[in-house]
Amino acid sequence: MNSAPYQELCTLARRSTALSSVGQLLSWDQETYMPPAGGAFRAEQSSLIAELHHKHATDKRVGDLIAACEQDKGLVANGAVAANLREFRRDYDRLTKLPSALVAELAMVGSQAQEVWKEARAKNDFTMFAPWLERMYGLSRQKADCYGVPAGGERYDALLDEYEPGMTAKQIEAIFTPLRMRLSDLVQRVAKTGKHPDTSMLKRPVPADKQHAFGLMVLKAMHFDLEAGRLDVTTHPFCSGLAPGDTRLTTRYRDEAFTDALYGTMHEAGHGLYEQGLPKDGTKENLYGQPLAESISLGIHESQSRMWENLVGRSKEFWMWALPLAKKEYGAALDGVDLDTIYKAVNTVKPSLIRVEADEGTYNMHVMVRFEMERALLSGSMKTMDVPGEWNKRYKDYLGIDVPDDRRGCLQDVHWSFGLIGYFPTYTLGNLYAAQFWETILVEIPDLKTQISKGEFGTLREWLREKIHKHGKHYRADELCKKITGKDLSADPLLRYLEGKVKTVYGV
Amino acid sequence: MNSAPYQELCTLARRSTALSSVGQLLSWDQETYMPPAGGAFRAEQSSLIAELHHKHATDKRVGDLIAACEQDKGLVANGAVAANLREFRRDYDRLTKLPSALVAELAMVGSQAQEVWKEARAKNDFTMFAPWLERMYGLSRQKADCYGVPAGGERYDALLDEYEPGMTAKQIEAIFTPLRMRLSDLVQRVAKTGKHPDTSMLKRPVPADKQHAFGLMVLKAMHFDLEAGRLDVTTHPFCSGLAPGDTRLTTRYRDEAFTDALYGTMHEAGHGLYEQGLPKDGTKENLYGQPLAESISLGIHESQSRMWENLVGRSKEFWMWALPLAKKEYGAALDGVDLDTIYKAVNTVKPSLIRVEADEGTYNMHVMVRFEMERALLSGSMKTMDVPGEWNKRYKDYLGIDVPDDRRGCLQDVHWSFGLIGYFPTYTLGNLYAAQFWETILVEIPDLKTQISKGEFGTLREWLREKIHKHGKHYRADELCKKITGKDLSADPLLRYLEGKVKTVYGV
Repeated sequence: MNSAPYQELCTLARRSTALSSVGQLLSWDQETYMPPAGGAFRAEQSSLIAELHHKHATDKRVGDLIAACEQDKGLVANGAVAANLREFRRDYDRLTKLPSALVAELAMVGSQAQEVWKEARAKNDFTMFAPWLERMYGLSRQKADCYGVPAGGERYDALLDEYEPGMTAKQIEAIFTPLRMRLSDLVQRVAKTGKHPDTSMLKRPVPADKQHAFGLMVLKAMHFDLEAGRLDVTTHPFCSGLAPGDTRLTTRYRDEAFTDALYGTMHEAGHGLYEQGLPKDGTKENLYGQPLAESISLGIHESQSRMWENLVGRSKEFWMWALPLAKKEYGAALDGVDLDTIYKAVNTVKPSLIRVEADEGTYNMHVMVRFEMERALLSGSMKTMDVPGEWNKRYKDYLGIDVPDDRRGCLQDVHWSFGLIGYFPTYTLGNLYAAQFWETILVEIPDLKTQISKGEFGTLREWLREKIHKHGKHYRADELCKKITGKDLSADPLLRYLEGKVKTVYGV
Repeated sequence: MNSAPYQELCTLARRSTALSSVGQLLSWDQETYMPPAGGAFRAEQSSLIAELHHKHATDKRVGDLIAACEQDKGLVANGAVAANLREFRRDYDRLTKLPSALVAELAMVGSQAQEVWKEARAKNDFTMFAPWLERMYGLSRQKADCYGVPAGGERYDALLDEYEPGMTAKQIEAIFTPLRMRLSDLVQRVAKTGKHPDTSMLKRPVPADKQHAFGLMVLKAMHFDLEAGRLDVTTHPFCSGLAPGDTRLTTRYRDEAFTDALYGTMHEAGHGLYEQGLPKDGTKENLYGQPLAESISLGIHESQSRMWENLVGRSKEFWMWALPLAKKEYGAALDGVDLDTIYKAVNTVKPSLIRVEADEGTYNMHVMVRFEMERALLSGSMKTMDVPGEWNKRYKDYLGIDVPDDRRGCLQDVHWSFGLIGYFPTYTLGNLYAAQFWETILVEIPDLKTQISKGEFGTLREWLREKIHKHGKHYRADELCKKITGKDLSADPLLRYLEGKVKTVYGV
């Protein structure tokens, strides 16, 4: 595009993105290698970079350039440019709509509330956390009002839009309701079988260095480019698409839970392959800084991680390839373990209290509880003090289990304390997109299961790159879903997948 | 200090320093953990941060605040504040004196010349590099003129001042000349003995992980705080005083050169102890960003690294402590090695071609050759095309050796290619300061040698902290030297030290 304003806009966007990539390095380093005593000053460095980034991204010049480009008919006639302009506009408006006093208050209250949450959870004392939760929801309502509630929508939409652009609470509800009912039924059917697959081998000790070597071998098989990425160890695994040519994964190793690290690594590598597939590295077309080189949404990002972790990693075909290799690497730990045993062990379904430890079948129930409660709290139809009761009631209704205390109930997750409201649904959206894409993939790559059973993941990675990664934000999530699968997002593919899996493990 | 302009000045300085610390993290990461493909964009990140730093540090507001503070008699009456203002002024003037076109040209030519230098060295072709060297010296003359040549001084002083504030070429010459003559004599006396201490044990293989464990043990004994620092592996060892509470060292391991890594680690830890001793970490007095929390000069910094590497690390007392521990850690590699053998092995004196591989006795000769030539090239009294001849002539005169090719001669070091002119002398200044401080230390800590022989380095570290580290830039290097040792810097202590050592090893 020869338009001077458009060129300048892309240059400024690249600078903003470069600044935010520096912030990402500060975070990555803080979680991996920074010495403990460096923590106090790191906060100062990070906040300085965040401030400079905000200043650059909200500069009036940026707004003027966007407006000028939007008037240029030649520009907007180009689909790719139009997509960039749509997203430049969206980002600029969101950033400039929040008054800096509110931004500062959200940051300050969030930081304090997080500390209170830690203590309240440790002491199992919801009443201690309640006033902070109240305050954070109050600020989040203000935030939603600044963004603006869409006509016919609700405040929740304005918050959700930050993580899943274009998605509304009503759309989510329409998908989540049948999902919840059929999953609840599925979980009860499993419980009635009285079957409990042997999972004891998952607790056999495997040293961290062997787990690491195996994880790297799987990364290579997945075609994660280790010349343009790394794998390190942190308390909480994450993926940082830090910069062009620089995508960093982390995992964690516990001696007596080797599949935790394996699935953690495959999950983050799923995110990592998306980052590596975005058109930001190429020398031919260097779109770094433009929305065309950025991921669509958290839901689509999560679809990539969940696909590799669950649809690939928990399949029988995956273990046909991986089990002999794991046996070779892990030795005695896998003695006497056959394909059927490991397959069932990594696919058990059992209602439990903690979201992050939940299995594939019950995980989404945890998310749905949070979505319903967030929505009710934000609208005011649920009172803060009713949170524990409402939480426990839902766990009983949906999962059939009693919550013994708030520590293992409504106080378990950090998200709400720092205002991450509207974020939880993206975890389940990821599972939904993954399952829906998967059905299409199995049609378009008919021998995929055979390939997986041989550890050949190249065709799958290429498919994901071509169909999803390389487009960046060209399409909105719903458009992409329809373009790829021919249908709107629905609960059916995920339910078909989970029901099919339960049949192979529990026979119901 | 309650002065509002002074407070604001310190706040702005802290922001500039925080930005430059972010640049340091980008560099550290680039050398340690960044995946190879991240290199191209890293340059873009680093240059953006450098640009923002320059913009902040040269902001007119900073200049106005400095000027206002300089007029405030109450402020300048305070010695510490006066030192801060003196250095704020110096930094501001230096940064604002260079036109941005010259800065950009220096960066561009430097980057290109470095690539040419690499190729010229590989091809052993000085004529290829000559025009770039010519150009770089031309730009450096312009740079010196922008800084301003002091009355009665020369252009070299203006460049040297960047690394060793306040020092002049004439002062250096006055110290280097007797040093060169007496060292030359010493080297010849050693050669005449015909003695060649056995160094074969230094080449026995020791695995990197054992070297690393031993290195960490030595760091702990030196009281380098590993909660506020780290040790990693890079191609070229360095120390980065990255931020408050965050000082990072690197070293390298070659299986068949275990003392290289040991001395590399001790050298960088000497720098690291200086950084950890600066008053930037304390909660009581947080001076980070102010000159009072910064190191004085490269020469003083180097005195700290050389002291630990050489005066401590190559002493017999050090090996009385370290040898039994090394034997335990390294096993067979040190079989049959006794104290006298290892002491002589790490203290051999032998003229050689490559500066970075030179021993303690001949090292300074390499530096002096470069100083003389830099000065002559800058003044124009030496022509670029005469560089190889002049180089080889000096190596014959001073060290008695023939330079077989330019690759191992005048093309060996990268410094000149990117305009690092006036930097080399600080290596020898470090040795000189270290030896002069050491004589005072031995008087003030009479049983230091006994302490060293037991691996007790706490008193020494405390002395360095009290006398040098904690003052930051309060004193200029020459003031500090006089304050500590009662004398101006001279070649005598270093010569006494080296002559004493040669006596114990060669008997002359």
